[in-house]
Amino acid sequence: MHFHILTLFPEMVMDGLNTSITGRAMKNGHITVEATNIRDFAENKHGHVDDYPYGGGAGMVMQPGPVYRAYEYVKNQIDERIKSSQVDSQVTSEENSMLENDGDFQKKPRVIYMTPQGKVFNQSIAEELAKEEDLVLLCGHYEGIDERVLEMIVTDNLSIGDYVLTGGELPAMVVIDAVSRLVPGVLNNDVSAEFETFHDNLLEYPQYTRPEEFMGRKVPEVLLSGHHKNIDAWRREQSLQRTKERRPDLLSD
Amino acid sequence: MHFHILTLFPEMVMDGLNTSITGRAMKNGHITVEATNIRDFAENKHGHVDDYPYGGGAGMVMQPGPVYRAYEYVKNQIDERIKSSQVDSQVTSEENSMLENDGDFQKKPRVIYMTPQGKVFNQSIAEELAKEEDLVLLCGHYEGIDERVLEMIVTDNLSIGDYVLTGGELPAMVVIDAVSRLVPGVLNNDVSAEFETFHDNLLEYPQYTRPEEFMGRKVPEVLLSGHHKNIDAWRREQSLQRTKERRPDLLSD
Repeated sequence: MHFHILTLFPEMVMDGLNTSITGRAMKNGHITVEATNIRDFAENKHGHVDDYPYGGGAGMVMQPGPVYRAYEYVKNQIDERIKSSQVDSQVTSEENSMLENDGDFQKKPRVIYMTPQGKVFNQSIAEELAKEEDLVLLCGHYEGIDERVLEMIVTDNLSIGDYVLTGGELPAMVVIDAVSRLVPGVLNNDVSAEFETFHDNLLEYPQYTRPEEFMGRKVPEVLLSGHHKNIDAWRREQSLQRTKERRPDLLSD
Repeated sequence: MHFHILTLFPEMVMDGLNTSITGRAMKNGHITVEATNIRDFAENKHGHVDDYPYGGGAGMVMQPGPVYRAYEYVKNQIDERIKSSQVDSQVTSEENSMLENDGDFQKKPRVIYMTPQGKVFNQSIAEELAKEEDLVLLCGHYEGIDERVLEMIVTDNLSIGDYVLTGGELPAMVVIDAVSRLVPGVLNNDVSAEFETFHDNLLEYPQYTRPEEFMGRKVPEVLLSGHHKNIDAWRREQSLQRTKERRPDLLSD
């Protein structure tokens, strides 16, 4: 799976994703992540990409031109990769002639704008996005991005939650982390059970590891019993109780 | 305001926060961010901080000892800072004698465990947290952290949303970003209007900037009119319509 990030802070997203499971997934070739600097597509030699909002108001708005050209650059890369992989895999002559005759034979990639005005991201959306071959993530800054270019290129508006952040970079990293984990091969099989956190709408039960006694506190007896039926029942009960206490909204759904 | 992060990936969080507004806030001294590596407090020479879960199951669980000792280390730093600032500001003799006589004169810091089992973070929680002098953010990995140490040190469980992530690092960065913006002096006054995104429970209206025409698309007439009453009415209408379309749940609240 290929992630393409359009951002003013490419180092920030790349540094943050080089770690841990996403970093390993990149090294192993399960995913690629590429950050394109919107500033490289500025109209002027000063590299400015923002200007005052029409109609007045606080802050600055990102101009449509640099965003559009950064998008086109990424879209061309995707098209090139798809074309060359189609030629590589010896497509049928019918498809081949389509490629040859039709210069603009192009599927529009999925472009996700990270914005507090978007649909709230959740595990089901992550599962849906994990089916895509390419995802373009557009990160805004300042007071947002000129609406016209959003209308032209954006297919999905996503918010990671109801709070105000500096820009779309952390949200894009969150989406990439959550989606990458669902790409086959990224996680070892033995940790994939984690996915179930939200599958049955229950929060996870408490976990314990060595030592058996820590500063006077003992691991619950049942977990040491080796009696799997009792352990499962205890864990289920703990999950239910915790969900009732902390997230009753999950139970009512 | 002082943020203290307990993590297995200190570089990841520091790199991610050095950018943009949080980075500037650090340089200007409005906030400090310090990441403490839990692995530095491992029991063994191999630096292992995790072990198998009691009762069986997938994945590994972080042991209580290293987390507790990392917490104590940070807590001592906070206590030292508070004590020295109290001495600096020439406390009354009564308070002074308290300091001298009472070695464990310590306020327990607020410790936030980033976990999908937590309360869902939002702008009101960000506002509440922004009133603290110190915030300790605890980042888990693998299948989570031994429950006993959580019971001992954690004051708040927070989730940034209903999706599964690799660890608590991105969530901690999200919380620090959202909270920092509310610390006085971090934002220039002219961008503080952004806060209103969630204040009146309406999504923001679309924004436009130069050029007036972009690839055949024009800025809405009203925004060029200079008629402020009409502009305000148009924006309010757009906000309402957008909220109805994208987040009807905000209107029903």
